[in-house]
Amino acid sequence: MTPFGLNAVHRHTFRFSQADVEAFARVTGDDNPLHLDADFAAQTPFKRPIIHGMLGAGIFTKVLGTEFPGYGSVYLKQTLEFLRPMFVDTDYEAVFTVVSTNPEKHTAEVSTEIRDAGTGKVTTKGVATLMHKGIVE
Amino acid sequence: MTPFGLNAVHRHTFRFSQADVEAFARVTGDDNPLHLDADFAAQTPFKRPIIHGMLGAGIFTKVLGTEFPGYGSVYLKQTLEFLRPMFVDTDYEAVFTVVSTNPEKHTAEVSTEIRDAGTGKVTTKGVATLMHKGIVE
Repeated sequence: MTPFGLNAVHRHTFRFSQADVEAFARVTGDDNPLHLDADFAAQTPFKRPIIHGMLGAGIFTKVLGTEFPGYGSVYLKQTLEFLRPMFVDTDYEAVFTVVSTNPEKHTAEVSTEIRDAGTGKVTTKGVATLMHKGIVE
Repeated sequence: MTPFGLNAVHRHTFRFSQADVEAFARVTGDDNPLHLDADFAAQTPFKRPIIHGMLGAGIFTKVLGTEFPGYGSVYLKQTLEFLRPMFVDTDYEAVFTVVSTNPEKHTAEVSTEIRDAGTGKVTTKGVATLMHKGIVE
């Protein structure tokens, strides 16, 4: 586990499958054909179905809630910019950098970024604010 | 369907079940016990499991992607402030207000807010930016 503290950087590699996209569509109700229908997507600039941006951002809640800083994290804020489409069966790397901490309030701001593991291009970026009782310096 | 245009307001009532929370935990990998473990949650200020903030925000991707403006929406940005905890088996209302449009780029900014349907208190708020070919004025 990466120790959580100012300027600490944590990396997490992941990929999603079309089954994940379908499961996300079911639980959220977002069945936008841009994500589910190859024929519809073929008519868009993306040419093929793209992952829900919010599913991609799901890696932020996972890592912040289970790894860095981990269990017990309370999400306070998240900004998200969906800069490039994300696709299934593609390796991505999420990179987390602690940019500020407030030991009195047990809060921190963490830069959150997803990069295509092959090209290094950033697909999604933002800043998370969270509270965790372990944030003490 | 609510016509999409400047100052238009669209409302959507929803609720999530514990099965939804478990499905969201599976697809994202976020098994933070704050959402899944009643004993763990009992030791926190929330007293009982809370919904993943990102699952609550899933109503934004659903409504923007399927209802308002609807199919074909491309998510560009979303800010999120998780102001109060959200719980399962509780009615919430999501309120969407178009705050600006850019007809040339076919983009719009939409204020997104979740309110407890019983108390009216805001649990989550933010601003979405999206692109849709139907945004022409």
